[in-house]
Amino acid sequence: MDFAFDARTEQLREQLLAFMESHIYPAEPVFTEQLAQRDDPWTSVPVVEELKAEARKRGLWNFFLPGEHGSGLTNLQYAPLAEITGRSPHLAPVALNCAAPDTGNMEVLAMFGTEQQRKEWLRPLLDGEIRSAFAMTEPDVASSDARNIATRIERDGDSYVINGRKWYISGAMNPDCRIFIVMGKTDPDAEPHRQQSMVLVPRDTPGMTVRRGMHVFGYTDGDHGGHAEVVFDDVRVPAENLIGEEGGGFGIAQARLGPGRIHHCMRLIGMAERAIELMCRRATSRVAFGKPLADQGVVQDWIAEARVRVEQLRLLVLKTAWLMDTVGNRGAHTEIQAIKIATPAAVEWILDKAIQTHGAGGVSQDFPLAELWAAARMLRLADGPDEVHKQSLARRELKRYR
Amino acid sequence: MDFAFDARTEQLREQLLAFMESHIYPAEPVFTEQLAQRDDPWTSVPVVEELKAEARKRGLWNFFLPGEHGSGLTNLQYAPLAEITGRSPHLAPVALNCAAPDTGNMEVLAMFGTEQQRKEWLRPLLDGEIRSAFAMTEPDVASSDARNIATRIERDGDSYVINGRKWYISGAMNPDCRIFIVMGKTDPDAEPHRQQSMVLVPRDTPGMTVRRGMHVFGYTDGDHGGHAEVVFDDVRVPAENLIGEEGGGFGIAQARLGPGRIHHCMRLIGMAERAIELMCRRATSRVAFGKPLADQGVVQDWIAEARVRVEQLRLLVLKTAWLMDTVGNRGAHTEIQAIKIATPAAVEWILDKAIQTHGAGGVSQDFPLAELWAAARMLRLADGPDEVHKQSLARRELKRYR
Amino acid sequence: MDFAFDARTEQLREQLLAFMESHIYPAEPVFTEQLAQRDDPWTSVPVVEELKAEARKRGLWNFFLPGEHGSGLTNLQYAPLAEITGRSPHLAPVALNCAAPDTGNMEVLAMFGTEQQRKEWLRPLLDGEIRSAFAMTEPDVASSDARNIATRIERDGDSYVINGRKWYISGAMNPDCRIFIVMGKTDPDAEPHRQQSMVLVPRDTPGMTVRRGMHVFGYTDGDHGGHAEVVFDDVRVPAENLIGEEGGGFGIAQARLGPGRIHHCMRLIGMAERAIELMCRRATSRVAFGKPLADQGVVQDWIAEARVRVEQLRLLVLKTAWLMDTVGNRGAHTEIQAIKIATPAAVEWILDKAIQTHGAGGVSQDFPLAELWAAARMLRLADGPDEVHKQSLARRELKRYR
Amino acid sequence: MDFAFDARTEQLREQLLAFMESHIYPAEPVFTEQLAQRDDPWTSVPVVEELKAEARKRGLWNFFLPGEHGSGLTNLQYAPLAEITGRSPHLAPVALNCAAPDTGNMEVLAMFGTEQQRKEWLRPLLDGEIRSAFAMTEPDVASSDARNIATRIERDGDSYVINGRKWYISGAMNPDCRIFIVMGKTDPDAEPHRQQSMVLVPRDTPGMTVRRGMHVFGYTDGDHGGHAEVVFDDVRVPAENLIGEEGGGFGIAQARLGPGRIHHCMRLIGMAERAIELMCRRATSRVAFGKPLADQGVVQDWIAEARVRVEQLRLLVLKTAWLMDTVGNRGAHTEIQAIKIATPAAVEWILDKAIQTHGAGGVSQDFPLAELWAAARMLRLADGPDEVHKQSLARRELKRYR
Repeated sequence: MDFAFDARTEQLREQLLAFMESHIYPAEPVFTEQLAQRDDPWTSVPVVEELKAEARKRGLWNFFLPGEHGSGLTNLQYAPLAEITGRSPHLAPVALNCAAPDTGNMEVLAMFGTEQQRKEWLRPLLDGEIRSAFAMTEPDVASSDARNIATRIERDGDSYVINGRKWYISGAMNPDCRIFIVMGKTDPDAEPHRQQSMVLVPRDTPGMTVRRGMHVFGYTDGDHGGHAEVVFDDVRVPAENLIGEEGGGFGIAQARLGPGRIHHCMRLIGMAERAIELMCRRATSRVAFGKPLADQGVVQDWIAEARVRVEQLRLLVLKTAWLMDTVGNRGAHTEIQAIKIATPAAVEWILDKAIQTHGAGGVSQDFPLAELWAAARMLRLADGPDEVHKQSLARRELKRYR
Repeated sequence: MDFAFDARTEQLREQLLAFMESHIYPAEPVFTEQLAQRDDPWTSVPVVEELKAEARKRGLWNFFLPGEHGSGLTNLQYAPLAEITGRSPHLAPVALNCAAPDTGNMEVLAMFGTEQQRKEWLRPLLDGEIRSAFAMTEPDVASSDARNIATRIERDGDSYVINGRKWYISGAMNPDCRIFIVMGKTDPDAEPHRQQSMVLVPRDTPGMTVRRGMHVFGYTDGDHGGHAEVVFDDVRVPAENLIGEEGGGFGIAQARLGPGRIHHCMRLIGMAERAIELMCRRATSRVAFGKPLADQGVVQDWIAEARVRVEQLRLLVLKTAWLMDTVGNRGAHTEIQAIKIATPAAVEWILDKAIQTHGAGGVSQDFPLAELWAAARMLRLADGPDEVHKQSLARRELKRYR
Repeated sequence: MDFAFDARTEQLREQLLAFMESHIYPAEPVFTEQLAQRDDPWTSVPVVEELKAEARKRGLWNFFLPGEHGSGLTNLQYAPLAEITGRSPHLAPVALNCAAPDTGNMEVLAMFGTEQQRKEWLRPLLDGEIRSAFAMTEPDVASSDARNIATRIERDGDSYVINGRKWYISGAMNPDCRIFIVMGKTDPDAEPHRQQSMVLVPRDTPGMTVRRGMHVFGYTDGDHGGHAEVVFDDVRVPAENLIGEEGGGFGIAQARLGPGRIHHCMRLIGMAERAIELMCRRATSRVAFGKPLADQGVVQDWIAEARVRVEQLRLLVLKTAWLMDTVGNRGAHTEIQAIKIATPAAVEWILDKAIQTHGAGGVSQDFPLAELWAAARMLRLADGPDEVHKQSLARRELKRYR
Repeated sequence: MDFAFDARTEQLREQLLAFMESHIYPAEPVFTEQLAQRDDPWTSVPVVEELKAEARKRGLWNFFLPGEHGSGLTNLQYAPLAEITGRSPHLAPVALNCAAPDTGNMEVLAMFGTEQQRKEWLRPLLDGEIRSAFAMTEPDVASSDARNIATRIERDGDSYVINGRKWYISGAMNPDCRIFIVMGKTDPDAEPHRQQSMVLVPRDTPGMTVRRGMHVFGYTDGDHGGHAEVVFDDVRVPAENLIGEEGGGFGIAQARLGPGRIHHCMRLIGMAERAIELMCRRATSRVAFGKPLADQGVVQDWIAEARVRVEQLRLLVLKTAWLMDTVGNRGAHTEIQAIKIATPAAVEWILDKAIQTHGAGGVSQDFPLAELWAAARMLRLADGPDEVHKQSLARRELKRYR
């Protein structure tokens, strides 16, 4: 057992920290400025492309992807890097081409895509030339139970025809988002875990309509393409757009969600560190009732509690990454659920205290805290609400004693 | 001791509940629709004026104001009515002319205004013809400690000249907002609680500039005029615009805040009831993993906990109203602080669980829950953060033993 | 609506508070001393009898019992008196002949007993001459579900014959405990709520064996007769010892438990007040790191939170009492559950903070806090665990929407 | 970074787990039986000596002590072994000669003792022939602030003379406890951290009187010698009984407390694992309202939450051990505080839920849960209350920003 990072990780951490200082943090106000000035509320802005170019030049690129297509890092090596990007979650992940949902989509294509699919979609994604969307969640059903998914994907000759409604399709309104991975039912009569399939749907396919952007506590998240409600009305794609095999959708989703969850958790920890830093800075600089907030016992209690929680979470996330590397995603199933349960809730708590320390400023657009809070809160729901994961984890624990 | 409402309260509750059913709830989607279509993001919309006309016709008007200028209700009689309006907080309070910050401003004018001030500003406010703003909070200081307030109000001949910066001035961007009550320092050398004064500043006074709308999480609250950052740059008003006496600002603020806090708490309880209703409706209608959410033990636990908390909060709010009626606002000081501490936090918790029950819909614009949540969260900060009130309440408790 | 106590309540409160000051609090150290010196670890001690005599002389007696047999107080009048006795829960309730489980047993006999049963057992109980026990809970089943109760009560000629095992039978080892009310199944084939009956079993009936005293976090509660495990082995009593009718046991239990639960809650609030007082006294007198604990922000936070919670709880308990008086125990069912859910948990929290403020002293025998804590903790389990009550309350709430 | 145990740890874990199964768990009922039958309520019982002999024979001995005097394990190697002993905390630690307070006392003697002191006291302690006590905490002052300690140790010729009062001196009433390490003030005029010294006081030294056993909730902890209140009245010991140098007491205490805290945390995690196991066993075997408790959503939620918390805690404890090994106790200061803050509170929570799952049995002597709970609760106070550690940790965090 050894808690020190290996040499490659240390080196990449140093390079990334340097890039954060020299490029990412200085770009934050520029980003806000450019967002305010753009015409289309869903487009990205120039500073992002500049950061991508610089990051790629420095070799800070595609860290998330193990194996031949990516940078070859293990999950354990990637985890502390992803954490660092979480400190500036609107800029750093995308700058390094490590932003959701593209990461998950690239994994799917790398693992399950045909050569043609990889050439057409994975290549430009890996190069950061296009963006992508993942269309699973539906408004009318409890999507955490994949068996509920109602969108139909029907084989018709050499095509698949898609009908249904999806929402919270992140990034879908970004004009750079060229490709959608859509999950739906190809065989409602198959056994529950073999009913779903995934198909690739290029952006301009007729019949696919973005109806509106969904909000998250008032935020539209327009800077990364929002969260779309999308209607599929007789959307027709060639049969070769199927990913993997018919009935394989549930399996692909499972394979995609494990890494997706841990990436979210890694970044959340970086967000928590940013929140603690802001909380401490505010506490030492703001005076009320004759002394700095930093001298108030209750504020100290929050800071201590925040530190103690973050240290624990980070270790569990790192151990989970190590398990994924050593025994595989399946072997790390319990730990992936554990971090999915623990991290968003704890980070939400820390952000709440950082907000409270900032007074009205905390809920405003002048500090990143409220927006980070909304992101953390959303992650108590996204990829399955906490309660579903807790129930599943408990049943596995109980099974030993039945 | 008697826990039944008196006859007048019962009668007004019935009338108000009927109005909610017949007019307020049906107006909610119309309101959303009209908001989406307006040009100015800070104006009110026609349906609100229609509701005001109807409410006034029915005698459901100015309930909040005791004494000759208002409806003559006691705080205890008003409390359950205010709760009901909290079920639709964007429409019902304003429809009854019982919306913040006008209510507090009308109280100030009724209690401390000169006859001229009352004629010019109180009358049209009571008639719902104009709106108003209350400019106290400042971005650069911990405003919960009134001694920190930095805006200067200086006597210069027959005028007062105001310089400073305020933010989170609610309603200020609504074009109907015609008058600002501004708090600032007239005498920085007086003893701490006699340094501040309040003056009336009409909307178009030169030198007063609305710089931008502040957000609450992602919400601009544009439907009721937003939360403005306002700069005062040599703003000059006649000396007769002083409210009360020079140095009386702190006292007026205290007199204003007591009722303001209890009104917020009353409405919060209505918001909590709405949340419980939505949570139950969702739980009974949404099926996951083979059964309605309503049959999940954890969801039941939330519902029970929500019910148990609301029942306690309501009683404490009602008792506080009764104390204000019987021993005065000062005599009810501890209880006012207690409900200010307890209510926003508990209602925030309830809203969080209602959101969780709704899945992604809970954080979206399709249900009122996320927006209500932001309002409840804000009230853990507004009018002094919880921690300030707790500290003050504890010191009073401890004083008995020192 | 009126939050003032009526004249009779005010008068009795004054008398009781005077008695607490003059007799109860001074008796506390005497009680501890006498307990340490007695030979039988389950007996009461002389000071208790002296207090009973004095209380009865002052008319502070049998407050708990409404109607002809008791003092004629309503539940709403009794509630604030019971709260006061909770401040010294080992002495005051028994001094006023208002101690569990006798109170519930007297209610049962008053409501359901025959004239002969009342003469033989209710009379001496009302006179404080004997004590009694209530034998319902069983070790081998989840007793919160009365259908699980396994003890058999079989009719055999003119007798009932009892076989089974009970535990946590409070007071049973006190030699003054002369009579047991035993619940068991008379007809396992009847519909679920008509299977149980209750019979009176005098202490020395052959076949009834006290096996041992059960502990509550290390406490034996020997001062009021402990919590016995009792075995019934062919225990035979005359048929006229049946209380009410055969199959009526469940109904009697329900009738008994409502008042029992509210009495516990009333006293718990008095315990919480005692804890707050002790916490404040300690905080003002103990110095650490250069200032009194009372100046530590976290301690102030606890005190404020404790005060805010107690005020809410008390009001809900009082309203519940009022409902029992005005619409009956059935009509107050939801509120009785609500206080049962809310009170022990909140008071446990307050006691925990009072303990923490006392350092090691808090867990010791030198302060009453740890023992009070154990009593509050036990009440999250006794008369049905919180979770059972929450589930039931939630289902009633949800029923409106199904 | 590597989360696998090294080979030696794995091997010792296997040996220890085998010993737990073959000897410790079977000895638990024997232990309870023998405790009930002994005459002196403070003595140990024969089964403990048998277990010690067997453990030593198997080489499972003195794991806690690094370096030449002990088994040579690192903290990181010892941690998972200590965790396992925490599953049976009354038997396993003492069986392996790894029980507090002897462990800390042996560390003190190993690090600071003279050769003579080591020969006389360390040797028999390492051999498990005697036990020892550590007398620091005082009833009259906040002992978490060492500067408050009031006991005087005065040099008088060739002797030191001790006067003062200590309490919660664990193990002191065990007749095998032969030696006390006593902390007191030798120089009240020195700078704060140089006022205290430590001296060795053999059990029968005249003037040292055990006044009584202090309780922890209702427990006397008699099986390991209780928690004594001890009065020192002109207790005279030879000057060579000084440990280290005059004025070095604070430093020794600090050196002693770091390992002491982590050992407690390691064992607490084992206690938590035992609690989860018991909770699961109960949940799967007990039926209420028609289904096993294990099928209740709320119980599942507890189990998941417990598992998620334990996994995080364990990792932080292990990392802390690793830091102590690699950068020293001082370098691990923040982490030691972090686990001291996090572990007792979390394990207390888990034990509470395990208790609740057991109904009345949970608070009884029939399951170990209530007693384990009391131990965990005590550790939120012992070695400094959580609040002191949080404040200290927060100040260090804030220092970076001042």
